[in-house]
Amino acid sequence: MADKRSVGKPKFNVSQIGGEFALIGRLTEKPASRKIVKGIGDDAAVIKAGSKYLVFTTDTLVAGDHFSLKYFKPEQIGKKAVEINVSDIGAMGAEPNYFLVSLVLPEDIDVKIIEDIYKGMRQKGRKYKIEIIGGNITHGKQFIIDIFMIGEAKKKNLKLRSAARPDDLIFVSGDLGSSAAGLNLFLKNKKGFNRTKKRHLEPEAKFHKVKPFLKYINAMIDVSDGLASEVIRICEQSNTGAVIYPDQVPINPETIKAAEACKKNAMDYALYGGEDFELVYTVSRKNINKVKGFMVGKITREKGVRLFKEGREEPLAKHGYDHFLT
Amino acid sequence: MADKRSVGKPKFNVSQIGGEFALIGRLTEKPASRKIVKGIGDDAAVIKAGSKYLVFTTDTLVAGDHFSLKYFKPEQIGKKAVEINVSDIGAMGAEPNYFLVSLVLPEDIDVKIIEDIYKGMRQKGRKYKIEIIGGNITHGKQFIIDIFMIGEAKKKNLKLRSAARPDDLIFVSGDLGSSAAGLNLFLKNKKGFNRTKKRHLEPEAKFHKVKPFLKYINAMIDVSDGLASEVIRICEQSNTGAVIYPDQVPINPETIKAAEACKKNAMDYALYGGEDFELVYTVSRKNINKVKGFMVGKITREKGVRLFKEGREEPLAKHGYDHFLT
Repeated sequence: MADKRSVGKPKFNVSQIGGEFALIGRLTEKPASRKIVKGIGDDAAVIKAGSKYLVFTTDTLVAGDHFSLKYFKPEQIGKKAVEINVSDIGAMGAEPNYFLVSLVLPEDIDVKIIEDIYKGMRQKGRKYKIEIIGGNITHGKQFIIDIFMIGEAKKKNLKLRSAARPDDLIFVSGDLGSSAAGLNLFLKNKKGFNRTKKRHLEPEAKFHKVKPFLKYINAMIDVSDGLASEVIRICEQSNTGAVIYPDQVPINPETIKAAEACKKNAMDYALYGGEDFELVYTVSRKNINKVKGFMVGKITREKGVRLFKEGREEPLAKHGYDHFLT
Repeated sequence: MADKRSVGKPKFNVSQIGGEFALIGRLTEKPASRKIVKGIGDDAAVIKAGSKYLVFTTDTLVAGDHFSLKYFKPEQIGKKAVEINVSDIGAMGAEPNYFLVSLVLPEDIDVKIIEDIYKGMRQKGRKYKIEIIGGNITHGKQFIIDIFMIGEAKKKNLKLRSAARPDDLIFVSGDLGSSAAGLNLFLKNKKGFNRTKKRHLEPEAKFHKVKPFLKYINAMIDVSDGLASEVIRICEQSNTGAVIYPDQVPINPETIKAAEACKKNAMDYALYGGEDFELVYTVSRKNINKVKGFMVGKITREKGVRLFKEGREEPLAKHGYDHFLT
């Protein structure tokens, strides 16, 4: 990188301070405006707007990290860029309305690829009845798609990471680990496992799964970075701890076989892999018969997130939440 | 780039189709929702929200292209990232309210640099009474800051690029070319010229200059990419042409000297350089005594943007609007 300079002290990089998660903590300040219901620290920001809330989120796809043209069709990249932002909006209990697309393009990228990415984005736009209203195009070394999405929530529907209470049970809306398994299949050039690969190529937001019983959900988050990290985020914001029951985490049989083919552990994919975009939500004990999903843990007053394995609790060993540590 | 693939036909890149400007045209569709007052094609998107308009914009800074840590202090990068987005919001006749920050970080970037960039962003936040409400952090090869800004406009204050009328006069709010001259001074390691360099390092949005006479302005845009390209954009959206009078374009004496020191033409900086963030606005003839600024051209029914030089009109020779062509 030509574009770096010493600031006169030893290098002090993001992984040295504890990763992206710690960095966000350092960069966060308490909001001043009373219109800000939720600032930095949730799936989306929330602003009061008369009788409802406006929600705003941004999520970025970086070539070579979040997608590769070696195995993604351009349309799939566009679709994924939209779905991951819709997922963040849904994790707030909100519905998406509009989005802006900010592109960083390598100079020699084929225009057909960009047009096909837009086709994919518009296809998802029709699915969610949302539109591209603007954006920006600039050039850079790496192909990057950054979407900013705008949505709205009824006040009563808003779901924050901070609303988990001790003794809540933790649910997940569907099976985990497939996307990470799919990525590994591609990286290792494995044939077959089409369901698992598709989960990586064509993730879908899951808000529709929880919408029927939204009022019984306390805290909610989507699985961008693995179940473990999402539970940690809920606990950080809710000032609680949690226990995860790995034996109860739903994993599709094909994902297990895919993991075996890659000489990996499917549970690691589920806990630390990410990009499943299932929803993780906490529910008061009295309401557990009102909700659907898979019960995978419980919120505790005791801090820290532990795994319940072989009859006892042990602290989390890995940090799926940090792109800088994986 | 590892991340490219052929789509089975000859390479067809952005400069071959006529640049970024042409690409945006290819990617634009007419908005479907009646709430969308303005979609792709202005400084910001505009959405109806009760008695007012919400405006949304995004602008990106790419290391090595829009800033360099070789001559920018990190705080200045943060300040610039905010000002360029405030400038887009102001060019709509709107005021900024909130922003989200999307970072792409090289893995070994010093955390102190990121913290100082945030310091700069927060300093500008206090200036404009706006707050960071969220964002995203991911990693990539190049350091990129993408800001998504939310603002609002009174309905009567909204200014669109499309509102220029034949026979309008074209004004600019201040002198042009300094930022591009400043950049060239840095690239050529020239000493001195501190005013000019500061214009590149610390650009400022100029909405305050036009706010007192906003109601007499028809179309408006900010100077991101040089006067010529901004006039082209107004004409494209307004279905008009224009003549620019280069002799009347304000250029600071130091900018002229800086250009000479770089063996460049200051007028080229003004017309094709960009990043001045002055406002360009059109005004009906009957109102020209009601506004301030520098009259630099006129809108014509005849299409195309021409320069008035040595007693006659000639078509624009260069395309300052296209990062891919410069």
